[in-house]
Amino acid sequence: MNFRMIKYTVGWLLIFESTFFLVPIITGLCYHEWQSVFSFLATALVTVATGLLCILFLKPKEKKLYQKEGLVICALSWIVLSVFGAVPFVLSGATNSYIDALFETISGFTTTGASIFSAVEDLSHAVLIWRSFTHWIGGMGVLVFILAILPLGGGQSMHIMRAESPGPTVSKLVPKVKNTAIILYTIYFALSVIMLVALLVSGVDFFEAVNITFSTAGTGGFGIHNDSMASASTTTLVIVTVFMLLFSINFSSYFLLFRARFKDAFNSEIRVFLGVVAGIIITIALNLYFTGTIENLSEAFLHSSFMSASIVSTTGHVTLEILAWPELSKFLLLFLMLMGACAGSTGGGIKVSRIVMLAKGMLREMKMLVHPRQVKKITVDGNTVEHEVVRSVNAYIVTYFAVFILSMVLLSLCTFGGEPIAFETNFTTTMTTLNNVGPAFGQVGSTGNFGAFSNFAKIVYMFNMLIGRLELFPLLVLFTPATYKK
Amino acid sequence: MNFRMIKYTVGWLLIFESTFFLVPIITGLCYHEWQSVFSFLATALVTVATGLLCILFLKPKEKKLYQKEGLVICALSWIVLSVFGAVPFVLSGATNSYIDALFETISGFTTTGASIFSAVEDLSHAVLIWRSFTHWIGGMGVLVFILAILPLGGGQSMHIMRAESPGPTVSKLVPKVKNTAIILYTIYFALSVIMLVALLVSGVDFFEAVNITFSTAGTGGFGIHNDSMASASTTTLVIVTVFMLLFSINFSSYFLLFRARFKDAFNSEIRVFLGVVAGIIITIALNLYFTGTIENLSEAFLHSSFMSASIVSTTGHVTLEILAWPELSKFLLLFLMLMGACAGSTGGGIKVSRIVMLAKGMLREMKMLVHPRQVKKITVDGNTVEHEVVRSVNAYIVTYFAVFILSMVLLSLCTFGGEPIAFETNFTTTMTTLNNVGPAFGQVGSTGNFGAFSNFAKIVYMFNMLIGRLELFPLLVLFTPATYKK
Repeated sequence: MNFRMIKYTVGWLLIFESTFFLVPIITGLCYHEWQSVFSFLATALVTVATGLLCILFLKPKEKKLYQKEGLVICALSWIVLSVFGAVPFVLSGATNSYIDALFETISGFTTTGASIFSAVEDLSHAVLIWRSFTHWIGGMGVLVFILAILPLGGGQSMHIMRAESPGPTVSKLVPKVKNTAIILYTIYFALSVIMLVALLVSGVDFFEAVNITFSTAGTGGFGIHNDSMASASTTTLVIVTVFMLLFSINFSSYFLLFRARFKDAFNSEIRVFLGVVAGIIITIALNLYFTGTIENLSEAFLHSSFMSASIVSTTGHVTLEILAWPELSKFLLLFLMLMGACAGSTGGGIKVSRIVMLAKGMLREMKMLVHPRQVKKITVDGNTVEHEVVRSVNAYIVTYFAVFILSMVLLSLCTFGGEPIAFETNFTTTMTTLNNVGPAFGQVGSTGNFGAFSNFAKIVYMFNMLIGRLELFPLLVLFTPATYKK
Repeated sequence: MNFRMIKYTVGWLLIFESTFFLVPIITGLCYHEWQSVFSFLATALVTVATGLLCILFLKPKEKKLYQKEGLVICALSWIVLSVFGAVPFVLSGATNSYIDALFETISGFTTTGASIFSAVEDLSHAVLIWRSFTHWIGGMGVLVFILAILPLGGGQSMHIMRAESPGPTVSKLVPKVKNTAIILYTIYFALSVIMLVALLVSGVDFFEAVNITFSTAGTGGFGIHNDSMASASTTTLVIVTVFMLLFSINFSSYFLLFRARFKDAFNSEIRVFLGVVAGIIITIALNLYFTGTIENLSEAFLHSSFMSASIVSTTGHVTLEILAWPELSKFLLLFLMLMGACAGSTGGGIKVSRIVMLAKGMLREMKMLVHPRQVKKITVDGNTVEHEVVRSVNAYIVTYFAVFILSMVLLSLCTFGGEPIAFETNFTTTMTTLNNVGPAFGQVGSTGNFGAFSNFAKIVYMFNMLIGRLELFPLLVLFTPATYKK
């Protein structure tokens, strides 16, 4: 294990993080929020100092990274990022509890959007922008960002990218990892700017537009209003719906579109994604309309589209109290939550491409029962899926449910507001944190307020959010003693 | 597709079923229940007549069976068995609804034990013994029974046995399928007799002892008291607990024990099974004691052992209202429900051997992330698990969750007593029917009364029970058009 290289990379990460604090610092200066400015400034200084210590002393002799080091760097980076990022929440007085601050920061970076604050309107502008900005940073992944800028190692940076990028496989768009990272970040940045402009044109004020853009682009969901998006105009809701879906699509597709490779761009993952989402939007809208939950059909479609896009993209913006929705609509939203977005997007969840492979594996098994002599390979978009990918997708799904069950066991020992956590709450909060969505059913409610959980429950949720964002294995490898044996 | 052979086998099945009706007929004669006797007699005559029609006309020209025919025969047999077995419930006046009667019969044959009757004490002795007897027949599988007696085809009967037997693989204990079937049924019969004697010695009256034996041996759970086993003596509870566990263990192990192959008998599946069950019994007992749910520690252990054995064996006898138990205990029972018994037992669920293989697959994946160059095979008890088995276990688990989700979607459109089915009810009733257990949480309650569900919901549950008992694929193959194409 190349500990020095791990320390070195994490050091660079901290130096980058200290520059991220400039966003809330500048915001605080604009709004004369001196305590917030001081909090972020102090944290930035400590962060940059720690980072410099890491990169200047005990320099790595060998820059080579293997797969396991990629996984460890990735897992460790996200933890360290959150540990430092949480400090200003306490210093600025937004909360007295460091556990709560850490929860909020992890929820931010992992783009979950579950909050411990019930009244976000009381928070300073600097703190609000920091919450949204953590979504934007976490959405694309900070290590990918670093790869885009720093020449880290001799071609082994692919391991880091693979560990941090969502989905069963990572497609290098261009031969060099560095250039792939630059392209991805350019797309991310461009889409974000377009969204910001659209919001500004539609009449949203600048501060709010920036916040909505950050939290939507990262598919996070932190808002600046206590009622999330309930008071937004129809135009805003439509813009946000469209962009939530755009940010759920594999970013490689935009690159392929740009290169006029339309057929490759609309691959099976995207077709399945759009098909499932469209089908569920229509079903929920009709369900809401015919049960009388929403009396106007076009409104039913508006809210159905918004909530479906919000959940499937794992953003978690909310317009209505979905607890009052009929069982079918609620269940379909839960299904979208489980499925999640496309691989290689900023969204979370199991990912559509994995669902496609699993479904194909299921169909193949049935075909082979009927025709046992025909050995069939799984193909996606005409290409045979390699055995290793099938195996790792299967292992992923089993691990996912194992973590799910473990989380539910631990949470069944915890409390919410002094009461035991009921089954529905336990199930849906586990799912919402593991898939980085935000809203849940039961005691928590669709605005996703986690403040009333006991501290142990919050720790379980933090673990869920991190392991979910990093797609299980980096965090598991980090905590396996075998990783560190020679 | 050899339709004539399918018809022929189903014909024999019906002739066998008509003899099964002798049990309730004799019981009815003993208790002078003339309407019940008439109902079962009339059904038996119709059944035997239909069976004779099937075997005497359009005889099969070719006795050969392929895998897909084995699956189709298996799926069809269980449906036909239930369709005829349900008739006496209506004729005897136990219920007016054929849907309810069919639900009860499928619940019986699949050894689920979920009932539409809230007051079973009002039923006649003949009907009660028929309910319990369906568990006993379904537990070991009626086709395996037929294989033990009839010389069906030229060595292809393995396909039928594989389709009906629970677990990822079928071990032929001796070279001939017929002899394997005889051995399995002998063990089943012997264990049942021992249990009956134990109950009689402990002072249970004959009729009740026979009922308890039938429903425990088949791991079903139908009782003859409205409160299930709540009023049973401690001795009875201990006997039933022990036998529920004995019937959850792979029957091959008894054969191996008999042959003094102790090491093979205590294979990893059984060790994991006993270890997990023991761990959960202790945890639940302590949880019940320390939360004050049960104030006496030995009583906490009694009820914890009974309920854990009842759920993991997928029997579903109940001593206490478990809805009032603390969340941790309830959740651990749900976990046992999901896991289920050992392969090759009369119990249902996903089966311990599949869980073991999935867990090993998960660990292998992690090892390969740390050491990518070492390709590892999954081994169980020192033997490499064949690739096909691993693949089929993975396909099984994916299909299981797909059916689970589909069931929940359909149930979210249904009602219970006019009210929508709540999430916890939906989730736990889906699990309890799919795993053939019986009790559920939420609106249904731990005695598992399904009478108040709407008819559509009952149809979904019937499908769940059948597909669960036959381990998914036979029923799916039956309903796939591709099966019937040349």
